[in-house]
Amino acid sequence: MTAFARNQWYVAAYAHEVGRELLGRTVLGEPLVLYRTREGTPVVLHDRCVHRRYPLSEAPTRLDGDRVVCGYHGFTYDPTGTCVAVPGQKRVPRTARVPSYPVVEQDSLVWVWIGDPARAEPRAIPRAAHLDSPGWVTVRGMEPIDCDYGLLVDNLLDLSHETYLHGGYIGTPEVAETPITTEVDEGAGIVRVSRHMDDAECPPFYAESTGIQGRISRRQDIEYHAPCLYLLHSRVAPVGVLPAADGSDPDGFHTEITYAITPSADGKVYDFWAVSRDWATDDAGVTEFLRKNNHTVVMQDVVALNLLQRTLGTERTGYQELSINIDTGGLAARRILARLAEEGAGAAEPVAGAR
Amino acid sequence: MTAFARNQWYVAAYAHEVGRELLGRTVLGEPLVLYRTREGTPVVLHDRCVHRRYPLSEAPTRLDGDRVVCGYHGFTYDPTGTCVAVPGQKRVPRTARVPSYPVVEQDSLVWVWIGDPARAEPRAIPRAAHLDSPGWVTVRGMEPIDCDYGLLVDNLLDLSHETYLHGGYIGTPEVAETPITTEVDEGAGIVRVSRHMDDAECPPFYAESTGIQGRISRRQDIEYHAPCLYLLHSRVAPVGVLPAADGSDPDGFHTEITYAITPSADGKVYDFWAVSRDWATDDAGVTEFLRKNNHTVVMQDVVALNLLQRTLGTERTGYQELSINIDTGGLAARRILARLAEEGAGAAEPVAGAR
Amino acid sequence: MTAFARNQWYVAAYAHEVGRELLGRTVLGEPLVLYRTREGTPVVLHDRCVHRRYPLSEAPTRLDGDRVVCGYHGFTYDPTGTCVAVPGQKRVPRTARVPSYPVVEQDSLVWVWIGDPARAEPRAIPRAAHLDSPGWVTVRGMEPIDCDYGLLVDNLLDLSHETYLHGGYIGTPEVAETPITTEVDEGAGIVRVSRHMDDAECPPFYAESTGIQGRISRRQDIEYHAPCLYLLHSRVAPVGVLPAADGSDPDGFHTEITYAITPSADGKVYDFWAVSRDWATDDAGVTEFLRKNNHTVVMQDVVALNLLQRTLGTERTGYQELSINIDTGGLAARRILARLAEEGAGAAEPVAGAR
Repeated sequence: MTAFARNQWYVAAYAHEVGRELLGRTVLGEPLVLYRTREGTPVVLHDRCVHRRYPLSEAPTRLDGDRVVCGYHGFTYDPTGTCVAVPGQKRVPRTARVPSYPVVEQDSLVWVWIGDPARAEPRAIPRAAHLDSPGWVTVRGMEPIDCDYGLLVDNLLDLSHETYLHGGYIGTPEVAETPITTEVDEGAGIVRVSRHMDDAECPPFYAESTGIQGRISRRQDIEYHAPCLYLLHSRVAPVGVLPAADGSDPDGFHTEITYAITPSADGKVYDFWAVSRDWATDDAGVTEFLRKNNHTVVMQDVVALNLLQRTLGTERTGYQELSINIDTGGLAARRILARLAEEGAGAAEPVAGAR
Repeated sequence: MTAFARNQWYVAAYAHEVGRELLGRTVLGEPLVLYRTREGTPVVLHDRCVHRRYPLSEAPTRLDGDRVVCGYHGFTYDPTGTCVAVPGQKRVPRTARVPSYPVVEQDSLVWVWIGDPARAEPRAIPRAAHLDSPGWVTVRGMEPIDCDYGLLVDNLLDLSHETYLHGGYIGTPEVAETPITTEVDEGAGIVRVSRHMDDAECPPFYAESTGIQGRISRRQDIEYHAPCLYLLHSRVAPVGVLPAADGSDPDGFHTEITYAITPSADGKVYDFWAVSRDWATDDAGVTEFLRKNNHTVVMQDVVALNLLQRTLGTERTGYQELSINIDTGGLAARRILARLAEEGAGAAEPVAGAR
Repeated sequence: MTAFARNQWYVAAYAHEVGRELLGRTVLGEPLVLYRTREGTPVVLHDRCVHRRYPLSEAPTRLDGDRVVCGYHGFTYDPTGTCVAVPGQKRVPRTARVPSYPVVEQDSLVWVWIGDPARAEPRAIPRAAHLDSPGWVTVRGMEPIDCDYGLLVDNLLDLSHETYLHGGYIGTPEVAETPITTEVDEGAGIVRVSRHMDDAECPPFYAESTGIQGRISRRQDIEYHAPCLYLLHSRVAPVGVLPAADGSDPDGFHTEITYAITPSADGKVYDFWAVSRDWATDDAGVTEFLRKNNHTVVMQDVVALNLLQRTLGTERTGYQELSINIDTGGLAARRILARLAEEGAGAAEPVAGAR
């Protein structure tokens, strides 16, 4: 099982998911309740009442203004997590508070810091500006997968699986056939994997959305910011159509595919996915096509990874894997995640009920 | 997890549930089969055939007169648990018997003694005579809950949760606001919690059934006989209508709410519930209203406690609770249950197959 | 739990189940994928890709000619288990192979050897020629049961349960009443249990299929070849109709009831069942009647054994059974299985990914 890396930022939700209803999420095993104050500020609290540990994200728990009123006995918390009312008495115990979590809303994502709050540094959050920039249109979704988050990292760092698992959607023979180049910035925790196909079949995902007929030049440039953010810079164009010498590329189609890989609990991960484009932005048909098509692709991964997790769950310990060139990026990611987990080990855990 | 207290009486079933069909129940982890002889005497036997441990409560096991015939190979038991017939041979092994349990039918409840049969004392069983007395009308039911029985004890000893979990049914703001008084008889194992509201909103449960309009005087007097029987003596009347000096109370509405809290297995409890009244006893509409309304209330508890158990199941060990005044009764109950469990530890367990 | 006996042949599938679709089965905890080459030879490989352990029996894994192409990243295996292609590179690692299993197709059964391949001896496989011989008509099926395979062995070695669990189908009072004779060949691992009823009620299973009216002479001769093959030689005839002195028996109805008892994983077993007859072989109505009737009987066992397994799963360790004469065959079978398990312990397990 891939160890969790504490003292890191993770995407807990899309901005549009956090509102005036209580939302429960579990990140790195920490139960969280998310909501937005009347002024619009996102709040993330520990999702357990200090009294008898009822989940604050569950009905009949409700918001009263900016306060959370526990649905079991009415313990009431303000946005800092301080308990401000209890039943049957005026005095609220001094120690009654639930932990609150550092939170940053950026690029339409709600990032939460899991670890020692004193070390939370918003500038460390990697950007995905295309998710929330003028001129870009994005389709998105989130699927929970019942697998170790490391399996999803493996999956996304090695796109040769597109040919087999996603054939007929985004995979063509060339993806599996074409060797990759891998660059690892161990210090920054970034893995880059590139696959440039000069003359490839155009998969339906792009053929139907771009209108390109015939074979294509296709580039997949992965940029994984461990532990959570995965960017896939995709360029397709008719064979021979290359960017200009000055870097401009009016005839190429650029698509940004974003994943946030958020470990939930042991053997559970949130798979946030988004496809952003700056072409055909007014074409609702393309938008709907990409939404459906990418959702199908994501669900193929979900089914395969759920299966793989169940399979590994029945393996004898000490089973072996056999890695080849295509796994270079994934193996680098595992190394970085192991280091981050080690560095974050012992990071303060929230003390429930008192601190 | 709340330890089980052996050498105690527990409600295994309502009297009307025990008849000429075999009924399976599990009490304190002991599998039981219940039935009634042709003459009407309730019988409780260990629910496992001595041969290959087939459950005697499961089809095609059946009654043949007063005998139980195992549905797998036909081992046959009389009401004492003695095996009287086996297949393929005339001689029945001398050791072939299943344990039988002391049983008492009283107040429409079937009580079974779990522990050393020599110590079973029927007079120790607390009474709930209103469940089976002329002049009283009772609605009742039983819901299994997938939680530690201690969570149900907690729930019932602290009624401030009515305001939040049962708002719109039996809860009003005053229940949570009004302080309680608690009396504990440690020796007898009885906890009393009282809440007297002089001027309170009338909850729909009572407004629609009694016809009282406007605000009420409301009393909740809990009497918990650990480990199993919980009585809630409820009085409602229009504000200012008090019992007479001689104790008579013709204008108050008295309702007896009874629970039997029977630990089934680890993390499982039977929630027997009943509502008895001596007013409007001829009004079938009131009967049906109280049945539906109280079932709804019980199901709100079931949902919340199932959720709470799942939640606690994922907690790190050593999690904390924060208790306040409202928890005085519940904490006393936990203390008493712990003492009873300790006293009952080591009580003879039935020896299956031979004794 | 009954230990698994390695270094033994087991039925993994019926011959008709193995074709040009990949079939997944688990035998003694070993995940297997079965298919047939274009020429018709059955192949059994370890059901895990060496790369990331994706199950080869699961879509989108597929056959390409005689080769298996993993549905995740396209690792490709020939019928010997040798990996012959991987994505992104020409060179296939020398160690890339999945274990293959000795396999024998005989009597319409696909037998696989679990253990040290060097010790696989096809002649050791017991025969069930009636399953695939001219003049015989067979109905068959397979039901997975969620129980220890030992419970199914117990069940089949002691047919007294027919009277109780299968009353109205194949059981009559005489089956439970009539004593058995048991013969054990410990060395060969064969247990024989016989029950001869001279004057018995004819169960509906035989009354409706043979047309016999009135009481019958009925013989049940069990021949269990541990660990996997169970044969029940059944003869019914009108009372007094006996085989001739020369052994011929033109007026008796002979039915061969075959079971293959294949341990799948802990607490899981495949129950292969077949009923073969050499009478009324042209009567499709009889065929259909026997198929339905025996399926009903098997499902009665499935329900009972699933229940029994769940029941035993909640027992305290050290629970007792009480055995009597009818259990002589079952106890002998347990002894033999324990010996076979001990002899097979330490038998080579397939090394995944390399050997």
